[in-house]
Amino acid sequence: MASEEGAGVAARQQQQSVEWFKYSKRVVLRSIVCREDKGLGLVGERVVVGGWVRSRKEKAGKGVSVSRVPILEAPTAAQDGTCCESLVTRVPILRLIKRILMVKDGAADQRPAAEPAKSEPVVAYLRINDGSCLADLQIAVDSSMSLPGQVMSIGTSVLVEGVLEKIPLPRKHVVQLKVEKILHVGIVDLKKYPLADRKSSLEFLRAYPHLRPRTSIVASVTRIRNILSYGTHRFFQNNGFLYVHMPIITTTDSRVCGKMFHVTTLFSKSDDREKLMTTDDHEGINLEVVKAAIREKSSRIEELKRSDSNREALLDAQRDLQKANKLALQLEKRQKSTSLRVEGVNFTNDFFSRPAFLSLSTRLHLESYACALSSVYTFGPVFQADDSQSPRHLAEMWMVEVELAFAELEDAINCVEDYLKFLCQSILENCSKDIKFLSKHMDKDCIDRLKSVGSSSFARITYAEALEILKQVKDQTFETKVEQGLSEEHESYLADKIYKRPVIIYKHPKEVKPFYMHVRDDGKTVSSFDIIVPKAGVLLRGSQMEERIDMITKRIQELGLPQEQYDWYLDLRRHGTVKHSGFSLVFEKMVMFATGLDDIRDTIAFPRTHGSANA
Amino acid sequence: MASEEGAGVAARQQQQSVEWFKYSKRVVLRSIVCREDKGLGLVGERVVVGGWVRSRKEKAGKGVSVSRVPILEAPTAAQDGTCCESLVTRVPILRLIKRILMVKDGAADQRPAAEPAKSEPVVAYLRINDGSCLADLQIAVDSSMSLPGQVMSIGTSVLVEGVLEKIPLPRKHVVQLKVEKILHVGIVDLKKYPLADRKSSLEFLRAYPHLRPRTSIVASVTRIRNILSYGTHRFFQNNGFLYVHMPIITTTDSRVCGKMFHVTTLFSKSDDREKLMTTDDHEGINLEVVKAAIREKSSRIEELKRSDSNREALLDAQRDLQKANKLALQLEKRQKSTSLRVEGVNFTNDFFSRPAFLSLSTRLHLESYACALSSVYTFGPVFQADDSQSPRHLAEMWMVEVELAFAELEDAINCVEDYLKFLCQSILENCSKDIKFLSKHMDKDCIDRLKSVGSSSFARITYAEALEILKQVKDQTFETKVEQGLSEEHESYLADKIYKRPVIIYKHPKEVKPFYMHVRDDGKTVSSFDIIVPKAGVLLRGSQMEERIDMITKRIQELGLPQEQYDWYLDLRRHGTVKHSGFSLVFEKMVMFATGLDDIRDTIAFPRTHGSANA
Repeated sequence: MASEEGAGVAARQQQQSVEWFKYSKRVVLRSIVCREDKGLGLVGERVVVGGWVRSRKEKAGKGVSVSRVPILEAPTAAQDGTCCESLVTRVPILRLIKRILMVKDGAADQRPAAEPAKSEPVVAYLRINDGSCLADLQIAVDSSMSLPGQVMSIGTSVLVEGVLEKIPLPRKHVVQLKVEKILHVGIVDLKKYPLADRKSSLEFLRAYPHLRPRTSIVASVTRIRNILSYGTHRFFQNNGFLYVHMPIITTTDSRVCGKMFHVTTLFSKSDDREKLMTTDDHEGINLEVVKAAIREKSSRIEELKRSDSNREALLDAQRDLQKANKLALQLEKRQKSTSLRVEGVNFTNDFFSRPAFLSLSTRLHLESYACALSSVYTFGPVFQADDSQSPRHLAEMWMVEVELAFAELEDAINCVEDYLKFLCQSILENCSKDIKFLSKHMDKDCIDRLKSVGSSSFARITYAEALEILKQVKDQTFETKVEQGLSEEHESYLADKIYKRPVIIYKHPKEVKPFYMHVRDDGKTVSSFDIIVPKAGVLLRGSQMEERIDMITKRIQELGLPQEQYDWYLDLRRHGTVKHSGFSLVFEKMVMFATGLDDIRDTIAFPRTHGSANA
Repeated sequence: MASEEGAGVAARQQQQSVEWFKYSKRVVLRSIVCREDKGLGLVGERVVVGGWVRSRKEKAGKGVSVSRVPILEAPTAAQDGTCCESLVTRVPILRLIKRILMVKDGAADQRPAAEPAKSEPVVAYLRINDGSCLADLQIAVDSSMSLPGQVMSIGTSVLVEGVLEKIPLPRKHVVQLKVEKILHVGIVDLKKYPLADRKSSLEFLRAYPHLRPRTSIVASVTRIRNILSYGTHRFFQNNGFLYVHMPIITTTDSRVCGKMFHVTTLFSKSDDREKLMTTDDHEGINLEVVKAAIREKSSRIEELKRSDSNREALLDAQRDLQKANKLALQLEKRQKSTSLRVEGVNFTNDFFSRPAFLSLSTRLHLESYACALSSVYTFGPVFQADDSQSPRHLAEMWMVEVELAFAELEDAINCVEDYLKFLCQSILENCSKDIKFLSKHMDKDCIDRLKSVGSSSFARITYAEALEILKQVKDQTFETKVEQGLSEEHESYLADKIYKRPVIIYKHPKEVKPFYMHVRDDGKTVSSFDIIVPKAGVLLRGSQMEERIDMITKRIQELGLPQEQYDWYLDLRRHGTVKHSGFSLVFEKMVMFATGLDDIRDTIAFPRTHGSANA
């Protein structure tokens, strides 16, 4: 399209030419409406655009505004097929019939729209959006070519061809598409469409996780989440970390750290199901008793053979011995399988031949890669079978976990700070419009919050200092007393009310932290840290890990944990151990912090919580 | 460190200065040995480096090579703590004692190393690696400062400070580090270390998923996998796709498509476990019978009240009625819960109050985001509870899934081709040394394969054509006959033997593909495609999805699938449907293809297969 007449001209032409999307025969809306000139340089260009109708209004040909058309019931005839290809535009007679039908149907509506005089052509102005950016593109569809007005209600999909033109009285938008050809329309079954009302609450939308990305707010959150995900990869890749995928299914039972889901195939095989609940040897038959009986019978047989007196008795005894041997074999087999029975369930026949769980965290596994490749991170789902209904709790979350070899607590904290600053900066740079929209509709502070994290350092206090500060608080009654130790409630109070910015609490008493954290020289505290942010609460937890085999073994014993479970993990200390540190960030908490959303269920596409897992 | 004396000097100095890693007080090995000058420009610089010992040899002070020192048993004294801090280097008397002890212990070995004359200082040359690249760095440790030689065996971790110097007779390496201070040593418990033999097979290593990243081969695979992951994100982000996280736990039962894992908390609660297997109403008590009894008792009571003859009988009847009412209530409750009983298991008390599974694929869920935001992709784990022991099968895999709205089959195929070419190019650009190493030790063809995919187009044949071609094959006996339809075995043959490059097979008969694929005008085939590559077999499967509500409903009915399961999914066709296409790539297959690995279990950190899930 562009001829080569020097760099300046080429640049200008580049500016003017339309960018067709490589993998669909259309132009992505962002490349029109998000240009610096808002698309003005593209006026006169012929494009194909697609999207879903966000709003519509109609105007009579002579410029009389007919006001926003209310959403009407779709005529039943149209419900037969939701996908009306552009047949109508190609066959004038059909178009005519449709128009007549439409007027008839429209008359049946309870709140009739001002009906334009039949001689005047009516132009429908539809705002469509394809998800590539927050802004819509206005398309102008002449009623002489469009399908019945009602069909083009909110949620309808369209693929149209036309020419970009200047809007006569530009306000927010400066260009629109004058539609010349309708290539595709996917109507909405209005009787069933739950998103017809544009003002649905987030709570209402949660019942429709498969449809809610069509709303501006959920689309904005999705774009911000995307930038946070990609920003995570960019930050760690730029700093030489390797991304490794850690296991979702684990046989390391970490139920002391939280409630875990079992992963099983026992429900699927009917023959296994019968064996599922068999508990210990019923009828009190004991292998030792049977073995004693075998010994007794054997010597009895020998005796009978010697005496040669009673042939019948010998045969009986031999039969008894056979039976006893068979029983012993059965019991031995059962005993073997009993060792794989946990809490009364027999896992011998399960998929992995032993209990398997969904990971609560993959940091232990990640350490094995840090203790070989030095700087590693993972980004994957983790699970918690907690029956909490808190707006900050999900059963399925995504977690960014990082592990650094040859690194102490301070190194991990520095890494976290840089990472979080990078994320905040990424959003401000790449999602400025989405974040403005959210600050208007969700949380007016979210831009300031992002800016302040990007520019200022975090407050750093020890656990003991945090306790002291909270003991002074008089204007707040906490559910649990500060004296009993810090709870999430206390931690949030520090970030929300006292510091009003992220707070790093470090050096916890070892009793409140897991066994694998590095015990400090005082023998009482561990090299741990938590980062608490306003709005989302505990964003991440990190620590230096215990690298000394004797110390970590002692901790496992102190806590009474099953040491054989952690044998593989202790190998990392037995062989070539190094100081290493890392952290786990709950990604949805970061999305909450960035967007200002109040409920974590709105930060992820298909939220899973206790009693609820739609689709 | 660099003074500003003009751009040329600055650039040279930049070249000379050492790059300290921001999050640990050391220099990453890659920034030394992977420079264009192999580190020559850094000679004279003081650095701290860390890593794990890959190999070692010793030389007497006058340059007499003492040959590679065999791996000896670590002296028992050193096993007390694996983490010997640099105490010894600081206390000369201790150092002396240690040296004497060491010589004594060394003498006990079965294969004694040539013992250097006691007056000559011995220098140990250790090759260490920190995972940042394939190449090792040689460090020279004077025996007068080092810990006993045996302790520094393969797998030992070290953190050392010293000065970079030229190697007198440079071969592969041109610089080494002359160690001046040992900051940390993490010894190896040789009695237990399984990786002491450097020539372990991949099969052997599989038993130690937590240690195997310390081998060159698994480290190389990890770096390549990292580049493939990041390349995936870069490709889709550069092309305007949004990354969305799809659910891992799903309540959409897709067991017709493959075996699924159940996710449950029923094993965790002892009281629920008792209810777990309760089947239908025992004792044959039927709600209808009880209701009839209630009616009978009620009228009896009325009668007794009217007659006023028998007070005792009235009280009895009233008690009976109470009991019957209670029973009816219980039965109603049970009946309600029975509806949540699947295959005899009662899921009412399970975490989500109904059966929940691990996703086999998230494409259906992803469609909901494509039908709102147009171009989306996801990258997450999927699960298949298949008891296959094939070297191409995992129970837990990572999958890249892509969905494009306003796109037909051709668009998705074009997108895949570009994506795969981009990945191959990324590896050649970013992992050239790793891939050379693999081509030497694993599969000599892997570089050629990557280059050819990067530069040539894929073969494209229809399913019918593939059948015809395979029917002509005479030199191969297939396990299943071609006449019965294509199996993975046939498909691999096409890529491995006939085309010797990736093959796209498209337009399958609808019977062999799932219900959601777009039925073509012939009514018999669907708009599907599979990509088969040499080495890994079926790499990905894609299709245009069925956008017509009537057609997809008909398919669901034809196949007898539970329509209510898919009601949410059908909403995408009811409301604003569009043509859309996409694909699912099994990421581990891509790693196999790129690295030439024969067994899929070596492509992922912690492989999960039937009967096996270590750690």
